[in-house]
Amino acid sequence: MRILILGGDGYLGWPQSLYLSSQGHEITIFDNFMRRHFDLERGFHSLIPINTLHERVAAWKEVSGRQIQLYIGDTMDYEALTSAFRDVQPEAVVHFAEQRSAPYSMIDRRHAVFTQTNNVVGTLNVLYAMKEFAPDCHLVKLGTMGEYGTPNIDIEEGFIEIHHKGRSDVLPFPKQPGSIYHLSKVHDSHNIMFCCKTWGLRATDLNQGVVYGVETDETTQDARLATRFDYDQIYGTALNRFCVQVAAGYPLTVYGKGQQIRGDINLMDTIRCIELAIASPPREGEYRVFNQITEQFSLVELAEMVVRQSERFGLEAQVKHLPNPRVEAEQHYYNAAHTGLVELGLEPHLLNGSVLESLIQVAIKYRKHIDRNLILPTVNWRTTKNEVYRTDS
Amino acid sequence: MRILILGGDGYLGWPQSLYLSSQGHEITIFDNFMRRHFDLERGFHSLIPINTLHERVAAWKEVSGRQIQLYIGDTMDYEALTSAFRDVQPEAVVHFAEQRSAPYSMIDRRHAVFTQTNNVVGTLNVLYAMKEFAPDCHLVKLGTMGEYGTPNIDIEEGFIEIHHKGRSDVLPFPKQPGSIYHLSKVHDSHNIMFCCKTWGLRATDLNQGVVYGVETDETTQDARLATRFDYDQIYGTALNRFCVQVAAGYPLTVYGKGQQIRGDINLMDTIRCIELAIASPPREGEYRVFNQITEQFSLVELAEMVVRQSERFGLEAQVKHLPNPRVEAEQHYYNAAHTGLVELGLEPHLLNGSVLESLIQVAIKYRKHIDRNLILPTVNWRTTKNEVYRTDS
Repeated sequence: MRILILGGDGYLGWPQSLYLSSQGHEITIFDNFMRRHFDLERGFHSLIPINTLHERVAAWKEVSGRQIQLYIGDTMDYEALTSAFRDVQPEAVVHFAEQRSAPYSMIDRRHAVFTQTNNVVGTLNVLYAMKEFAPDCHLVKLGTMGEYGTPNIDIEEGFIEIHHKGRSDVLPFPKQPGSIYHLSKVHDSHNIMFCCKTWGLRATDLNQGVVYGVETDETTQDARLATRFDYDQIYGTALNRFCVQVAAGYPLTVYGKGQQIRGDINLMDTIRCIELAIASPPREGEYRVFNQITEQFSLVELAEMVVRQSERFGLEAQVKHLPNPRVEAEQHYYNAAHTGLVELGLEPHLLNGSVLESLIQVAIKYRKHIDRNLILPTVNWRTTKNEVYRTDS
Repeated sequence: MRILILGGDGYLGWPQSLYLSSQGHEITIFDNFMRRHFDLERGFHSLIPINTLHERVAAWKEVSGRQIQLYIGDTMDYEALTSAFRDVQPEAVVHFAEQRSAPYSMIDRRHAVFTQTNNVVGTLNVLYAMKEFAPDCHLVKLGTMGEYGTPNIDIEEGFIEIHHKGRSDVLPFPKQPGSIYHLSKVHDSHNIMFCCKTWGLRATDLNQGVVYGVETDETTQDARLATRFDYDQIYGTALNRFCVQVAAGYPLTVYGKGQQIRGDINLMDTIRCIELAIASPPREGEYRVFNQITEQFSLVELAEMVVRQSERFGLEAQVKHLPNPRVEAEQHYYNAAHTGLVELGLEPHLLNGSVLESLIQVAIKYRKHIDRNLILPTVNWRTTKNEVYRTDS
């Protein structure tokens, strides 16, 4: 299948591109290096060194004999985007190309406006490009479980049947996102739903949980194929960061009470979910939503699992509760449905000791690259003029 | 009270400014003339001639002795916007300053991107300006009933209590907007809700129905105080347009079956609703939603009422069904709650014969200004490259 991968140079986009290429699909990556630009801007870095995109693609050719095509461009640039659509005539588009950090979006007004404009207009451009140049193409869009917030009822997959005053309807699940970034994904969801209905486009919106893990069957074939591993306060997510903290002998920093529960998923499952979605496209005009998670944990549960596992390496780890820089419920009900992708064939890799062990091993292997000053959060949801600065620990 | 009115030169913003000024409030208008610019661009015009904003303000000073302060600027320009916030130190901000036409937003990609960027970023800027320079100020934001779409259950005011699998919660009412413009208002609603919760701002979101009418106690005091009366395919709304069509001996153009039901409200009630919202602000951190309608009618019902009333003027009117340029349900359940503003003190002016009579009278008075080529819709929801062109009828 001809597949266009927007944001194919990122943490998920790169291993996704490799995997789909290994399965025999014709892969084209479209990327503007926004994620690498942020590192350059702030002096941040991936724990695992990563090669340039051109080096990555050359290494993959060498290892697998397969060619990945490149378009360097920005989804905000409609001319660049549509030239890729016209040339590739994609049958599926996987859309990772968004600013994906909640703390980044809360730095200040400029970062908030950038995040919403970039994500919302970029996705509008993708929808117009599909309508104009590839109307039968299947959009596979990365959303986030954070769109739902933490309602006091079970979270369903995108839609909910509501009974109200003697009548009923199946309606979009109400959204209560917790940052300017999460809001941008809610805006995308509404825009995509409308364009499917109005223009007959077909789309799968994957409300993804927090992804952990860093290795896939493809990335481990050559050091030049590695994907990034973020542990900093802006782009690092909880479990990856905890493993780095344990390897660095740094306390595991939990925000607030730590009873915040989130859906989680292994990188290998994420990649498989997208393949499954592509293999079973929705019908014309259908806007389909899956919750892309396999389990759910509280922050404290994750931290304790890492502490337990680290003892096998002779590491002594502590959990430290920080004042919560976010405005969020710290104790709440959480139960999110996630059966749609299992019905399509997903066989989850659950978070167990050996998964944690391999993650901690990776962190130990690259221990000397860890910059302890990138870890502590300096972006507070309650103020509109935050700085991202290095902290001495 | 010190009140900043964003978009105070528009159809609603201007009579709102006059009314609140007449009630003794200190009024500042902030406007960038976007609505007048569109007329200049397309050769469209208000049926009733309108004066420039400076002439309007001078006339009001002459008639009432009251001064309205002016800031000419764009909500997209944060420096301009915050200079108004800093100088005025508003206690309430009424926010009309958005691109407000669904057909405009559906012309093509450029107009879609403009509408969402202008409305969403403009409102984000207002929220940041409040947080930074007027955190106790009350935001009164114009939303639209079109955010809800036409669900098969009763529409509540912003929130709905959902019972699901043995649990319950009060959640934002699910949204199914029917155009890129209506989507922009849904995005605003989510952004405002988040900023109230995160920063403790206070806001009232008024989901307004279709407004009809053109005269208020203030605008009729002097011809220079008139507000605009739009009947064109882009900015004209159904009832106003029907009255103009009847006066011009033009068939009343109903889109599709005409069983589409919408909430409606008299201009005088709209103005009073906003006064009532201002007088009873929400508490700190509260995001409050009212449905700003007083009745609901189908398009065919409105057209038939105009036909009946026009007989009193010896006018013979016909109803003509056009192929629907929009993608929308043409037969559906519709029942929208609208008790919140009545509880605050609203006494509705319902749509009766004498209201219609006065509207038709206005249309007859300005009959010679009617350009029949502006009426027929040329923007089709199903295509992404529409032209706004003049039609010969």
